Amino acid sequence: MRPAIADALRLPGGPVDLTTIATDATPGFDGTKTDGRAALADMQVELADLQERLWAERTAGSQRRILLVLQGMDTSGKGGVLRHTIGLVDPQGIRITSFKAPTEEELAHDFLWRIEKGLPEAGYIGVFDRSHYEDVLIGRVRSFADPAEIERRYGAINDFEARLTDEGVSVVKCMLHISAAEQNDRLAARLANPDKHWKYDTSDLDERTMWSAYRQAYEIALERTGTDAAPWYVVPSDKKWYRNLAIAHILLDTLRGLDLHWPAARFDVAAEIRRLAEEAPVR
Amino acid sequence: MRPAIADALRLPGGPVDLTTIATDATPGFDGTKTDGRAALADMQVELADLQERLWAERTAGSQRRILLVLQGMDTSGKGGVLRHTIGLVDPQGIRITSFKAPTEEELAHDFLWRIEKGLPEAGYIGVFDRSHYEDVLIGRVRSFADPAEIERRYGAINDFEARLTDEGVSVVKCMLHISAAEQNDRLAARLANPDKHWKYDTSDLDERTMWSAYRQAYEIALERTGTDAAPWYVVPSDKKWYRNLAIAHILLDTLRGLDLHWPAARFDVAAEIRRLAEEAPVR
Repeated sequence: MRPAIADALRLPGGPVDLTTIATDATPGFDGTKTDGRAALADMQVELADLQERLWAERTAGSQRRILLVLQGMDTSGKGGVLRHTIGLVDPQGIRITSFKAPTEEELAHDFLWRIEKGLPEAGYIGVFDRSHYEDVLIGRVRSFADPAEIERRYGAINDFEARLTDEGVSVVKCMLHISAAEQNDRLAARLANPDKHWKYDTSDLDERTMWSAYRQAYEIALERTGTDAAPWYVVPSDKKWYRNLAIAHILLDTLRGLDLHWPAARFDVAAEIRRLAEEAPVR
Repeated sequence: MRPAIADALRLPGGPVDLTTIATDATPGFDGTKTDGRAALADMQVELADLQERLWAERTAGSQRRILLVLQGMDTSGKGGVLRHTIGLVDPQGIRITSFKAPTEEELAHDFLWRIEKGLPEAGYIGVFDRSHYEDVLIGRVRSFADPAEIERRYGAINDFEARLTDEGVSVVKCMLHISAAEQNDRLAARLANPDKHWKYDTSDLDERTMWSAYRQAYEIALERTGTDAAPWYVVPSDKKWYRNLAIAHILLDTLRGLDLHWPAARFDVAAEIRRLAEEAPVR
């Protein structure tokens, strides 16, 4: 069964208008916050089981892996998803890569150079906290590259993600969609709580003044890089519990789609059972 | 308050005789398995809070970090600790490094070269699944290096760990202590369950025949590298629930000992609150 939430949030092809997608809705789920949290906790067993199978397949030579890309405006909750959703599964099988402002070395290479280095190995669920999409988001809004280079990047991203798919990477991209009013509330809450001041940066408000330019940059990126092989999901994220549940559904849907099996033994099971039973005393 | 379990398991200086340390005891805890699992779950809030403070301090320039070394015979439960204990805290702040048989490139360097590369950055809780201790354990038992080189390594490890401590790394080393009989049961259980065959390696039984040589190698390593700055804990691990709880206590004790605080704001809080309240409409 396909999880209903994943189906509901998958972005169809064609032009994207984010103003028509509610940020506080709960598509595919009609329960309360309490229901949603319980539903998330209930998913842990299946998520953990499928993740272990993915990990186990690696020992039998499988190249399969998952890349979950998290994008969204400041305070949209990328960290919360990592804590509450990704935190449900075994940390051994997770590779989180956070992309900050590029370093001098990174800037001396193509924008995809540092992305390649952050890709998950076979068997892993890799999670990108921001990604190559920054290079067509803040890169576009702040004109960090000239228009022809920005233009080139959409195609380069599609080629790159198609190659990843061919290599065995399931690429899943999530945009955490919040309203400007919700971001105001979250920034105000950070400022009101001294325990959260470390999370606040004065540049957050500068970026916020460019809200509509960012929205347009997202719309262009979503439209031009949403493919069957590497789809975008727009996740209403004003409700944190729904956001966490939705990402878990998207991850579960991706794992189920891989049809994962436990690898068969590559040794003589009966012989090993005998060998263990008949061993000399071990002390 | 110091967690009682951490105190009970900390190895004192002097000669080590592992045959005198029970593998199925529960030092510092007199509850049942159910109590132990509940006690572990109850620790999540404080562990997560302290981990976030460690992470937050990094933004204020702190160099502090934790390195938790997990060592133990096959099936002693390093993976279980990662899943059940390390899995309690935010995966964003965790760096797990697993050390397998060294590659050709790694063998061409000193044994600490790959260890340096796997160290956690500031703000992280790093966990080593096996470590540089393999080079004085299997390295000694299987004579992968000559005796003089093995001898040199104990001092090199102490110097290395002393340097890490000076740099701001809290080094904590745990030996997961199981009996040979318990290992037999666990290997037999793996062999009996086709879903677990991928975890089994026929070389496991070859290593098992060297059980007492490994025990002696551990005893020498524990005695020679247990220091005030980088102590060893011997964790009775026949009971999985106790092992997971004990490592959580050791981690909690280490985090509490750091006396972590939320960094003060490095901006004018009142001015930012005003700026947010008075901004032009954002849509």
